[in-house]
Amino acid sequence: MSATPFDKAAVLVEALPYIRRFAGQVVVVKYGGNALAGASEDDALQLFAEDIVLMRQVGMRPVVVHGGGPQISDLMQRLGKVTEFRNGLRVTDSETVDIVRMVLIGQVNPQLVAAINVHGSLAVGVSGEDAGLIRATARDPELGFVGDVESINPTILQALLDDEFVPVVATIGTDELGQAYNINADTVAGAIAEALGAEKLVYLTDIEGLRRVVSDPDSLIRQTTPDELDALMSDGTIAGGMIPKVESCVHAVRNGVRRAHILDGRIPHVLLLEIFTDEGIGTMVR
Amino acid sequence: MSATPFDKAAVLVEALPYIRRFAGQVVVVKYGGNALAGASEDDALQLFAEDIVLMRQVGMRPVVVHGGGPQISDLMQRLGKVTEFRNGLRVTDSETVDIVRMVLIGQVNPQLVAAINVHGSLAVGVSGEDAGLIRATARDPELGFVGDVESINPTILQALLDDEFVPVVATIGTDELGQAYNINADTVAGAIAEALGAEKLVYLTDIEGLRRVVSDPDSLIRQTTPDELDALMSDGTIAGGMIPKVESCVHAVRNGVRRAHILDGRIPHVLLLEIFTDEGIGTMVR
Amino acid sequence: MSATPFDKAAVLVEALPYIRRFAGQVVVVKYGGNALAGASEDDALQLFAEDIVLMRQVGMRPVVVHGGGPQISDLMQRLGKVTEFRNGLRVTDSETVDIVRMVLIGQVNPQLVAAINVHGSLAVGVSGEDAGLIRATARDPELGFVGDVESINPTILQALLDDEFVPVVATIGTDELGQAYNINADTVAGAIAEALGAEKLVYLTDIEGLRRVVSDPDSLIRQTTPDELDALMSDGTIAGGMIPKVESCVHAVRNGVRRAHILDGRIPHVLLLEIFTDEGIGTMVR
Amino acid sequence: MSATPFDKAAVLVEALPYIRRFAGQVVVVKYGGNALAGASEDDALQLFAEDIVLMRQVGMRPVVVHGGGPQISDLMQRLGKVTEFRNGLRVTDSETVDIVRMVLIGQVNPQLVAAINVHGSLAVGVSGEDAGLIRATARDPELGFVGDVESINPTILQALLDDEFVPVVATIGTDELGQAYNINADTVAGAIAEALGAEKLVYLTDIEGLRRVVSDPDSLIRQTTPDELDALMSDGTIAGGMIPKVESCVHAVRNGVRRAHILDGRIPHVLLLEIFTDEGIGTMVR
Amino acid sequence: MSATPFDKAAVLVEALPYIRRFAGQVVVVKYGGNALAGASEDDALQLFAEDIVLMRQVGMRPVVVHGGGPQISDLMQRLGKVTEFRNGLRVTDSETVDIVRMVLIGQVNPQLVAAINVHGSLAVGVSGEDAGLIRATARDPELGFVGDVESINPTILQALLDDEFVPVVATIGTDELGQAYNINADTVAGAIAEALGAEKLVYLTDIEGLRRVVSDPDSLIRQTTPDELDALMSDGTIAGGMIPKVESCVHAVRNGVRRAHILDGRIPHVLLLEIFTDEGIGTMVR
Amino acid sequence: MSATPFDKAAVLVEALPYIRRFAGQVVVVKYGGNALAGASEDDALQLFAEDIVLMRQVGMRPVVVHGGGPQISDLMQRLGKVTEFRNGLRVTDSETVDIVRMVLIGQVNPQLVAAINVHGSLAVGVSGEDAGLIRATARDPELGFVGDVESINPTILQALLDDEFVPVVATIGTDELGQAYNINADTVAGAIAEALGAEKLVYLTDIEGLRRVVSDPDSLIRQTTPDELDALMSDGTIAGGMIPKVESCVHAVRNGVRRAHILDGRIPHVLLLEIFTDEGIGTMVR
Repeated sequence: MSATPFDKAAVLVEALPYIRRFAGQVVVVKYGGNALAGASEDDALQLFAEDIVLMRQVGMRPVVVHGGGPQISDLMQRLGKVTEFRNGLRVTDSETVDIVRMVLIGQVNPQLVAAINVHGSLAVGVSGEDAGLIRATARDPELGFVGDVESINPTILQALLDDEFVPVVATIGTDELGQAYNINADTVAGAIAEALGAEKLVYLTDIEGLRRVVSDPDSLIRQTTPDELDALMSDGTIAGGMIPKVESCVHAVRNGVRRAHILDGRIPHVLLLEIFTDEGIGTMVR
Repeated sequence: MSATPFDKAAVLVEALPYIRRFAGQVVVVKYGGNALAGASEDDALQLFAEDIVLMRQVGMRPVVVHGGGPQISDLMQRLGKVTEFRNGLRVTDSETVDIVRMVLIGQVNPQLVAAINVHGSLAVGVSGEDAGLIRATARDPELGFVGDVESINPTILQALLDDEFVPVVATIGTDELGQAYNINADTVAGAIAEALGAEKLVYLTDIEGLRRVVSDPDSLIRQTTPDELDALMSDGTIAGGMIPKVESCVHAVRNGVRRAHILDGRIPHVLLLEIFTDEGIGTMVR
Repeated sequence: MSATPFDKAAVLVEALPYIRRFAGQVVVVKYGGNALAGASEDDALQLFAEDIVLMRQVGMRPVVVHGGGPQISDLMQRLGKVTEFRNGLRVTDSETVDIVRMVLIGQVNPQLVAAINVHGSLAVGVSGEDAGLIRATARDPELGFVGDVESINPTILQALLDDEFVPVVATIGTDELGQAYNINADTVAGAIAEALGAEKLVYLTDIEGLRRVVSDPDSLIRQTTPDELDALMSDGTIAGGMIPKVESCVHAVRNGVRRAHILDGRIPHVLLLEIFTDEGIGTMVR
Repeated sequence: MSATPFDKAAVLVEALPYIRRFAGQVVVVKYGGNALAGASEDDALQLFAEDIVLMRQVGMRPVVVHGGGPQISDLMQRLGKVTEFRNGLRVTDSETVDIVRMVLIGQVNPQLVAAINVHGSLAVGVSGEDAGLIRATARDPELGFVGDVESINPTILQALLDDEFVPVVATIGTDELGQAYNINADTVAGAIAEALGAEKLVYLTDIEGLRRVVSDPDSLIRQTTPDELDALMSDGTIAGGMIPKVESCVHAVRNGVRRAHILDGRIPHVLLLEIFTDEGIGTMVR
Repeated sequence: MSATPFDKAAVLVEALPYIRRFAGQVVVVKYGGNALAGASEDDALQLFAEDIVLMRQVGMRPVVVHGGGPQISDLMQRLGKVTEFRNGLRVTDSETVDIVRMVLIGQVNPQLVAAINVHGSLAVGVSGEDAGLIRATARDPELGFVGDVESINPTILQALLDDEFVPVVATIGTDELGQAYNINADTVAGAIAEALGAEKLVYLTDIEGLRRVVSDPDSLIRQTTPDELDALMSDGTIAGGMIPKVESCVHAVRNGVRRAHILDGRIPHVLLLEIFTDEGIGTMVR
Repeated sequence: MSATPFDKAAVLVEALPYIRRFAGQVVVVKYGGNALAGASEDDALQLFAEDIVLMRQVGMRPVVVHGGGPQISDLMQRLGKVTEFRNGLRVTDSETVDIVRMVLIGQVNPQLVAAINVHGSLAVGVSGEDAGLIRATARDPELGFVGDVESINPTILQALLDDEFVPVVATIGTDELGQAYNINADTVAGAIAEALGAEKLVYLTDIEGLRRVVSDPDSLIRQTTPDELDALMSDGTIAGGMIPKVESCVHAVRNGVRRAHILDGRIPHVLLLEIFTDEGIGTMVR
């Protein structure tokens, strides 16, 4: 690399106040399947793992939350399972929720765990079924096992964090009978950040950040507030897949999470840059 | 049920010395896919879960270890994946190990966790990849990702047990590069029992117990020793799928585990009967 | 015994939810001298000790409180000590309180402690004089050293419970000068249950339970409330020696103790049956 | 009192090095029934209690051990119980051991506890039956329930000391069946001092100290060793009731107790003088 | 010394209730440079050190605070540094505050620490700069680096007390830029006593105590209140160098410190006499 | 600065393995008065403070040790104190040791503490007199109060490190009478590193590192061993003021300190570069 020793020292010194500010703080990071198009997927995962390990190592308490939409679709297709729609919404029947569970808990989650654990015995995979972490309720009987978060029991996460592990959460929930539900990972990330009293909630996405005018790259929002985001959702500026992320940011910041961020996961080491440098990255809500 | 109040009190009093003896002790239970033919599978799982919860509740520290052979074969078939054999042994290529991982971590493990957690937020699913639990090495390059246990790092299990959780372990291991391996679950159960200094190692099987003469039901072995088991394996009396179980029992008892048991998982609540009553069940090694 | 293995398992499973519900909870048991006529006294004591040990072993925190009326009368007689009465009430002079103290602390208490400790080093005898446990005031100067409970300092009980011992309490109290007083053991049991925030307060008596109509065995009260008991004491249905027990139940339930029970101590293992089975036994106040 | 302020300060300063040296140390004090003839019994008990409380308050961990010979004889007589002798030794039948137990646990022990607790909730009475403290074996079947110390389980004493209580021990032991035995209190004091790794073992007696020549007051032994004491017992200089005390001193000092003392309990506050001042008092063994 | 054994015991017993009352309590002692004229300075320091060690040893938590006016003047003079006055007040320029710092932290503080540590590894010197203990603000820009206490951060003192050390505090404060300030030691002592929730605040002075009539030795105030002291300051009875002491006593007692004392440091062991005996010494505010 | 975001991330990632390796490790840094000629003194001190704070913040446990030769000479001169020599060695009389103490504890130490504490309440000044940290013996009676390290009692340092403070040590020692001695700071740094079982011992000097040929800049020693250093001292290659440093490095590495470093303190942030980057700096001994 081209940095001189002087540059190196300067970067470390620049990081110092951030390291101090975030020592011991919980940071919930939602890792998105689509988030990392700027590099090959494997490389992206490795860079992401390095960021998480560095956060842990300097004393932060990162929690990773992930979904796995593309991988689910892929296995559905391989198994010849056709998605049924009712009133335009996907129906998650019993077989589908089993597939979702297999992919999230048995495929995506161990990939993340393994990538982090190349650096040490740090990461522990957790599903929402473990120790009653995510209690779910059916959103609509017609949709089958699509669930909403009813409550978060963060005991297992607290225990793992206290033992200095990095929890990696697959977003399956259960109802009181032990039935599994598929739950939106963006929503779970926000709910967990609230339940843990997190300092930060970070969404890694495949966009540069939120914009005030969708078509205008210069309208990138650096800092915003829950109120402005409410307005942007009301007038349709923010729409589609960003809604659960933005709603979760708004809800989390209004319920004790200090800051929420929407970052461009395609930038290598974007987490490090956001957290440990003076660079302005993505959109921050506070 | 037909027990009188006097009977009930007698059963509880009979259990007392066992409850005292096993308080705080680790018991590793290998739950086998074939073990529970005496009842419908769901019922068997529920009965098993009740046993584990009761063990936990009276102060024991149960650890569940499971494989999932039949479920793996089932998914392989559904995905049209044909198993390749080399020199008569199944080859586990990269795609196969991914399927094994999905089934063990994403299907069988959460079923066990969910069944236990109907009784409270007790069980936590753990894979051998979590926090470096199972370090594996390739058995034979020709066989692909079939691994042997190189070492067990029980830190995550100890942490969960100290926090009063019930770990449920899926037997995937990793090498130092993070590559996943499929590992025999019977062997893992024994290795974990040793690493935890367990009081007991229990295999739930679909046989009544070991026999001295294979064809003679009256030759059921109630108690035996590692030396006798060595002899029975040498002369071929014990063979086939029982070998990894019996070898693990022998190794474990020689390395600090007090007692190993081969029980008939088809008997309802066989764990409770073995542990908390004076009934003689299955085969005990010490 | 006649229970089948299936019965045995069923009894243990029936106990499971109760074991879970009462884990870590304090249960104060008043052991009455007259309570156990259904068996020879020694046998009764052994059965009682087994019940207490089993409660302890599954994680409950039992506290035993006892009096010793018959044994006191016996020693009084042997020493040729004639009880003086004033206005129809027994006078407890200095010599009498010394006799009471000898019997309760030096005879009855060690018998209970020894019976429990056959099962392990669990029980520790405690008198109300130890570490200021029971602070007493004279009820009436004319009656001498008959005391009422002024306050309970549960420090020594908490310490012993935290160290996993079973306290066995002899109901002698002291005033601030160190003078000993004889105190009604039923009343002390209730006061200790309140001071410890007990889950349960249990009186072992020689009656089947309370009745709504004294002469009618069919009028046994299964469940009742403090208000109903107030009424039954007002109209004289409840009278005599039951008054301190019932008053203590009422007071305790109104001051944070979840449930109070009046059980028939003549039934073998009545404590186990009440606590760990679905059987309905005696009278419960809540 | 006649001490000037300057004197007072000097006494406190004189005490300083002793307070420092003994902070946190266990001191086992055998309180003898005959020890305090120089004052009325009540006064003697009060002075003794003050000494124990002061020791506790400056950070020492005193343990009081007592017998109660005269009080036992007194109750025997009042109950018209005649002592049987066999080969010249007193036979302790079942009724006698019950009387011994009543007196030690129910009369002498609470008197000591009450005297100390006038100064705060400090003392807790303990019998050798509590939590298996003193395990006894019969000395000779012909003598009935006269026991020797088989082993000491100091768990309950450690627990009480850790909770900053002052244990007061009545010297009743039990065998594995829960049968009570009467045991020599001097011997118990030594055994407890060893089991606790005490800094000091102190016997309060009614003599000035040991003498090298029985008839010569000038031959008082200030300091001595186990070897010299062995010799003095061999040649008969030390005899009678002093034998158990001296044997215990010798055994204790040879097994890890730093110093043993035989003090004249008739001197007011003799414990304080021995421990906190430069005065030479009684006989010290090291 | 002339005290008899009986006297000695009496002094120790007299101390007992005080030892009990003050166990675990924080006592802040302001040690004044002029306080000890009744003895040679070295002797005075040794007596003071003995008092502090004894307080620590019996379980109190003493904190020593000191200034060093005479020693500062002496070094100023040796360095030929002339004090500048503005409007009659001494100006503390940068060079002067460096000299103050050297004397307080580098000369007076280690003398106190060394005197105490002759008795063990107890004392630890602390300056107001350590761990941000004393945050200061400039009193008046014209006066230079003369500071007032802005806030006390007692973390380092709590940590040292919890580790059973005796903190000895030099009264230098710093502002947020790390600039050192000279601060009145009497005021600091009061502020630290408040911040620690001290039981006592003690000023060792060279007067017998406060007087109601300055010229009348018989008007010595034994006990007083903040209100009376306010009045005595208003009418000029209390004036000069006593003002910071008396103001601090008044403020401290009004803010949670139980008692403040103005003692005559010329009396040998005056701290011991005040704290551990019934003697009436100096002036007490409550 | 000129580093790009990509550079910044690369520097942080480069630091990651070092952060992990040194987490929780003690690093003793000897800060030399002459070490920082490459910048104005104040700037150098600020850079040094930033390095120490960053080390602390990422989980290392730095301990700073300092001397103060130039500052001592300066005050000696200002006070007109002439150094006496005997046999060519400087005599440290009583007055001189008082001056040394004032300078080290009262001038240099608070400057270092203040510089670090600009970043938070982290640093705590400690002298070797505090809590008996440095026990000294006279090197030679003729030389007065020049001491050698007799022993290190690291209790106070351990306590401060456990409470997450940064100890800054002034190298004054005391003998058992409390007499202060001046001790070579290089030697103290090594002795403290050994006593704490430090991972690293670092000397900040004003040379680039050790050379194999004094006159040849190209002979800079990157890595060396105790044996080679012994040889280089024997043949005179290493001489003068480097001797105590090199001897301490040799002794420390032979007694459990993993690595010792001689670094060029004139390089800005040389500590960060050595510890957190792959740059090769100065001379390392292992």
